[in-house]
Amino acid sequence: MPHRDPGSVGVVETQTVRLFSDDQPLVLADGSTLGPVDVAYETYGTLSDARDNAVFVCHALTGDAHAAGYAPGAIRPGWWDNLIGPGRPLDTDRFFVISANLLGGCQGTTGPSTLNPDTGRAYGLSFPLLQMSDFVTVHRALVQHLGIARLLAAVGGSLGGMQVLEWATSHPDDLANAVVVAASSRLNAQNIAFSAVARKAIMSDPDFRDGDYAELGVNPDRGLATARMMAHITYVSEDALSAKFGRTPQGEAIRPGFDVDFAVESYLDHQGEAFLGRFDALSYLYLTRVMDYFDPFADTSALAGLAKRPVKFLVVSFDSDWRFSTQHSRRIVRHLERAQLPVTFREIKSPWGHDSFLLDGAQYHATLTAFFDRALEEGL
Amino acid sequence: MPHRDPGSVGVVETQTVRLFSDDQPLVLADGSTLGPVDVAYETYGTLSDARDNAVFVCHALTGDAHAAGYAPGAIRPGWWDNLIGPGRPLDTDRFFVISANLLGGCQGTTGPSTLNPDTGRAYGLSFPLLQMSDFVTVHRALVQHLGIARLLAAVGGSLGGMQVLEWATSHPDDLANAVVVAASSRLNAQNIAFSAVARKAIMSDPDFRDGDYAELGVNPDRGLATARMMAHITYVSEDALSAKFGRTPQGEAIRPGFDVDFAVESYLDHQGEAFLGRFDALSYLYLTRVMDYFDPFADTSALAGLAKRPVKFLVVSFDSDWRFSTQHSRRIVRHLERAQLPVTFREIKSPWGHDSFLLDGAQYHATLTAFFDRALEEGL
Repeated sequence: MPHRDPGSVGVVETQTVRLFSDDQPLVLADGSTLGPVDVAYETYGTLSDARDNAVFVCHALTGDAHAAGYAPGAIRPGWWDNLIGPGRPLDTDRFFVISANLLGGCQGTTGPSTLNPDTGRAYGLSFPLLQMSDFVTVHRALVQHLGIARLLAAVGGSLGGMQVLEWATSHPDDLANAVVVAASSRLNAQNIAFSAVARKAIMSDPDFRDGDYAELGVNPDRGLATARMMAHITYVSEDALSAKFGRTPQGEAIRPGFDVDFAVESYLDHQGEAFLGRFDALSYLYLTRVMDYFDPFADTSALAGLAKRPVKFLVVSFDSDWRFSTQHSRRIVRHLERAQLPVTFREIKSPWGHDSFLLDGAQYHATLTAFFDRALEEGL
Repeated sequence: MPHRDPGSVGVVETQTVRLFSDDQPLVLADGSTLGPVDVAYETYGTLSDARDNAVFVCHALTGDAHAAGYAPGAIRPGWWDNLIGPGRPLDTDRFFVISANLLGGCQGTTGPSTLNPDTGRAYGLSFPLLQMSDFVTVHRALVQHLGIARLLAAVGGSLGGMQVLEWATSHPDDLANAVVVAASSRLNAQNIAFSAVARKAIMSDPDFRDGDYAELGVNPDRGLATARMMAHITYVSEDALSAKFGRTPQGEAIRPGFDVDFAVESYLDHQGEAFLGRFDALSYLYLTRVMDYFDPFADTSALAGLAKRPVKFLVVSFDSDWRFSTQHSRRIVRHLERAQLPVTFREIKSPWGHDSFLLDGAQYHATLTAFFDRALEEGL
């Protein structure tokens, strides 16, 4: 029984709250409005009477609100379960942890596959283009809804780390500590290129139907699976793939053909197939585009006032991460240091590539534990 | 006028020769037969009276017989024109250079898009699966047809280098020197993974039609373009993409959307589109699968007899190549050295990644020139 696992938060159901309405819509960074906006979220642990132990967890591109514990009847726990729970780095006996699905997502928060109440049809490509600050606006509203004036910390990996960076630099009063893992403050040409090909695969699938696939009863499965398979290669280090699969044939012996001959092909196929059941093609387009445009240090004057009440940063990279290499993290650190902000940087040795941020490497978790413990000691 | 270029071999027309017939078919490595087999090829320079100055050029995955000079009316020269011509490393005033399209290709040599005379329809997926040694068998037949008993050298990059490696280790009497550039003796899991996703993109395109697209009057353009775009990312180094494109917007200003916003996207789009006009989806499947299975050192006893009349090897890698990194070349060198074969290894500094083998870097070309000059001096 999963909830007997002593380190687990147990069974958790995702909740949904309407944070913006037709009358009081969300105002997006580009000035347009969107409403209503529902947000799917989960919480773990107990908010202290002083409301000073809240940590916001930001998910990566294909994550969701279900970060920890087990959905009713589920066998597998949430995507960051190894981080969150009694005795874990985000110790739910001491921290109150919040996790919410992103705006534009497809796991309960309003996104392009949501019905547009004005038309009675899914938004599709009429959903507004988003910016990183829109993610923050929505999650700030959730924090406010939960009655929390200031977060002890926000933490996220990959896109989640980028959201944390945006939050901490645009609204420094909102949080005391920020943990930015395996993230980037500016995608390079190769990063953009991989995302562009993924979007190409999706949008050139005949079943994409200009984004209206849902109401036409189809789904760009082939394009979405191809996109996921390619992206997955970039999440794992070359050495990790070699160690895990090498050139092992999938069947008993190699029988050449164009189907799945090698174990690594079977693995990727499975990654692609499993993804179809849980993710939406339009969300993939919208969220990757937000990453492409993110560039919070383009205007360095924006950082000028931050040193007055500085957020304490922990920036973490993994030495085998080739999607967002340590170079990306060093750039973040450089800009934060120039802005006179306190920043601790760790490059963690890990063979697993970008996905290391989801794993429970000893050095990695020890680094996070030390940072969160110190944060709790120092308080808001 | 291109043919006024003093370093160019001038206007060259691809020739085609039938090397295997219905009666005397090609016997493939797996025991099956194929006939007729036509081979497209070009030659540059003049075969010496002693027939001792012939160099065979092996092309990469998407190359063709047209390595040098200008096709009639063409503005752009062949794919390895910077290497081949008067005064160039393969100096056509001294060397007789042969370049031929691969078996299974789509540029004049028999391949899956060729009409099967037995059925009157294109082979499609009924074309036999190939092995690297089949490429060699066909090109050996061409060399024999040209009246050449022994090659002074064979040279190739990427898949071309792999063919050279196969040729030199399976038929060492055929050649005196072998130049293996940016190649691999065994694809790793990541290499296979990228090829698997490329094939997935092609085969999941509804217009692939189980390989019968040609006779149905369609073409899996979307899948093939996606495959090419993704592969192209792996041919270029991260730094080269950054240096060339950075985050430059494609238009005058960034107008966010899901089309081509960044210059790197436009570039990849163009790579995908241009590819459609010159390459066939089935050839992509067949040739990449040959690469996946290539593993000439799996049985090291096969190398035992090679030291008797040793082929002299030059193995070249590029430090920014992440498709076939220097690690791949070092593995080749290690096996050749264990077999007591003379091998010179150079890791060339080049910022351009895998595609460096097609460029005319000074250190690279100086290395090739020295090797070819020495080869000519020593003779057969």
